[in-house]
Amino acid sequence: MATVPLLKDEEVSAEALAVFDEIRTARGTDYVNHFWRALAHDPATLRATWDRLQVVMAPGALDPLVKELLYVAVSVTNGCDYCIHSHTAAARAKGMTDAQYGELLAVIGMAAQTNQLVTAMKVPVDAMFDVGGGKT
Amino acid sequence: MATVPLLKDEEVSAEALAVFDEIRTARGTDYVNHFWRALAHDPATLRATWDRLQVVMAPGALDPLVKELLYVAVSVTNGCDYCIHSHTAAARAKGMTDAQYGELLAVIGMAAQTNQLVTAMKVPVDAMFDVGGGKT
Amino acid sequence: MATVPLLKDEEVSAEALAVFDEIRTARGTDYVNHFWRALAHDPATLRATWDRLQVVMAPGALDPLVKELLYVAVSVTNGCDYCIHSHTAAARAKGMTDAQYGELLAVIGMAAQTNQLVTAMKVPVDAMFDVGGGKT
Amino acid sequence: MATVPLLKDEEVSAEALAVFDEIRTARGTDYVNHFWRALAHDPATLRATWDRLQVVMAPGALDPLVKELLYVAVSVTNGCDYCIHSHTAAARAKGMTDAQYGELLAVIGMAAQTNQLVTAMKVPVDAMFDVGGGKT
Amino acid sequence: MATVPLLKDEEVSAEALAVFDEIRTARGTDYVNHFWRALAHDPATLRATWDRLQVVMAPGALDPLVKELLYVAVSVTNGCDYCIHSHTAAARAKGMTDAQYGELLAVIGMAAQTNQLVTAMKVPVDAMFDVGGGKT
Amino acid sequence: MATVPLLKDEEVSAEALAVFDEIRTARGTDYVNHFWRALAHDPATLRATWDRLQVVMAPGALDPLVKELLYVAVSVTNGCDYCIHSHTAAARAKGMTDAQYGELLAVIGMAAQTNQLVTAMKVPVDAMFDVGGGKT
Repeated sequence: MATVPLLKDEEVSAEALAVFDEIRTARGTDYVNHFWRALAHDPATLRATWDRLQVVMAPGALDPLVKELLYVAVSVTNGCDYCIHSHTAAARAKGMTDAQYGELLAVIGMAAQTNQLVTAMKVPVDAMFDVGGGKT
Repeated sequence: MATVPLLKDEEVSAEALAVFDEIRTARGTDYVNHFWRALAHDPATLRATWDRLQVVMAPGALDPLVKELLYVAVSVTNGCDYCIHSHTAAARAKGMTDAQYGELLAVIGMAAQTNQLVTAMKVPVDAMFDVGGGKT
Repeated sequence: MATVPLLKDEEVSAEALAVFDEIRTARGTDYVNHFWRALAHDPATLRATWDRLQVVMAPGALDPLVKELLYVAVSVTNGCDYCIHSHTAAARAKGMTDAQYGELLAVIGMAAQTNQLVTAMKVPVDAMFDVGGGKT
Repeated sequence: MATVPLLKDEEVSAEALAVFDEIRTARGTDYVNHFWRALAHDPATLRATWDRLQVVMAPGALDPLVKELLYVAVSVTNGCDYCIHSHTAAARAKGMTDAQYGELLAVIGMAAQTNQLVTAMKVPVDAMFDVGGGKT
Repeated sequence: MATVPLLKDEEVSAEALAVFDEIRTARGTDYVNHFWRALAHDPATLRATWDRLQVVMAPGALDPLVKELLYVAVSVTNGCDYCIHSHTAAARAKGMTDAQYGELLAVIGMAAQTNQLVTAMKVPVDAMFDVGGGKT
Repeated sequence: MATVPLLKDEEVSAEALAVFDEIRTARGTDYVNHFWRALAHDPATLRATWDRLQVVMAPGALDPLVKELLYVAVSVTNGCDYCIHSHTAAARAKGMTDAQYGELLAVIGMAAQTNQLVTAMKVPVDAMFDVGGGKT
């Protein structure tokens, strides 16, 4: 099921096809996954999303595997099925071991639990955690 | 505001005080932050939470800073104000640089955006992302 | 999969059947979609939900298509698969164009991203955005 | 802070005042809490919300305290600060003990944790949990 | 679809098999449901989760059926498909009637609605709902 | 409280100041609201966010007020306090009437309620709502 058809290469605009080509080159595979084929209905958003993703996920102060683990953590918390599948696969492709995956899940579960406990009790923030945002 | 009073040392049970002591020793500070003082109303949950947190956040296949970044990512996605404050502070204490913080936020924001796009279009999962969970 | 069977016309109570009839008349089709067949297990909630929905989604200060777009936006953010499918279809039936759909998704994605950035930094609300709710 | 002013008795419409009176009678106090004073800007929604709430929270197959605990659980999971405060207070007013509150929080935290673990692994639903919803 | 294979008895570690045995004994059935077979990839988290679940869901100040209803409420609000299916089935096994299920859903729906209304208007918390958490 | 200080004009980089200038020009006011002052810690994300926001919120197939209402709906559902305040104010500045605001809230509340009912029952999607996404 889906709310838009997944577009084949011959069905997309030239602008979208150019993004598909960049995806293929960046990943070294001819396969373009469903997300991009769905997003190809709106070439401008396809372009903006792909461009920004390249910047955000590039090696930087955090290494690409750590960024991918963060992506999984957010996707799990948002309950995005497709994203959980695709980014867990991406994390494995970038070297995530079974032990790392186990720890990732343990942290996600632990955080969810304490998040709820704190929220339930509406614990006031300790003054020491404030860095002065209120003083403008 | 809060739904429970924050308990002082002299107001908690012996079991809770024992946890407070472990927190103080583990962190090398006399300060016990509000979360634990709120949770001290239920010494059994206080004990279980502290014990499990120590296991989950210990150095392992993932280093402690990465675990802390994951904790922030989950807390932001769950919208837990207290947790965002306390774990961002903890990440800084563990060495998170401004550049790493900037990239952390960029990944969290990017993931939230693509999570929503995927969810809106209900994109079907590519077969290549399945690892056989359905075959039991 | 479901946690309740979808009830056929001959399996529902007279009270539920009366709601089904109103749905058929209001929409000019004999088809009653799954949501109502599931809800028919509790005729009182079925009746309350249908009645309130008619009031809320009626033309008013906002036109029905705008209301439907808002319904999609909330459903996407809540991650309700069924609702995303049914209300995206309803929006198309009410005239949503491909260009409008593309912009709807772009706004949803953008909002999700900035929501997370703001939440991560716990930005204090500007005084100018307050309208006096605290002064009772 | 708020996005609407909280309306005093002398500022609301006759329709809204009638709801305020029902609230006062039902609760045996002259105090009308902030939620209703905010909602009074839209008398029709105020009326619909109050009426439906009376039906939903009335004693029935579940007793009022259990309903209140469920209300707290949903409010915590949705992260609604005001609702957590008001419904925790309401649960206490209906007799919730400290021990019950502790168990309520433990269940909420446990559920949040396993919810995330299951979601992360995208565990397929066991056939035995399906009750035939797909067969219409 | 899943991100991990569901492990059969002969594929799991001795530590995981010991947990499976406890599950079988506690429930009086040979069937071990998918969640535990997925979690068996990480025997330490499997053990910690099962042990804590037994404590949290045991009869106490709240009876087991009430705890199960709370589990369903949190799982619905978190949108965890598997958990909704498994805990709704568990609630029925513990005696949840159709009338109780109907009221459970009505409360969940009502709470979600008022949570959103309150959040939209950013209603300030009434002073009477504070129990002194800020005074440490 | 905040996790980063809000930067004054004299504290930000030249790149960030250029964005501030564009914000001032676009809005015809010297006031730069807190979100941008917080984001100025990461000039690259500040630039990317501002640029994309201008594209997404520009008049197009949907008019700017409708886009602003959608932004409020997503922000409420995500529980982003700052965003609810700032975008509700923005919607009023773009002409949102009290009647439109009332209907906006009613739709948000109604959608949240039916989202939860559908999710609780795990209603299977009607075949007529599928547009062929699975056929690639």
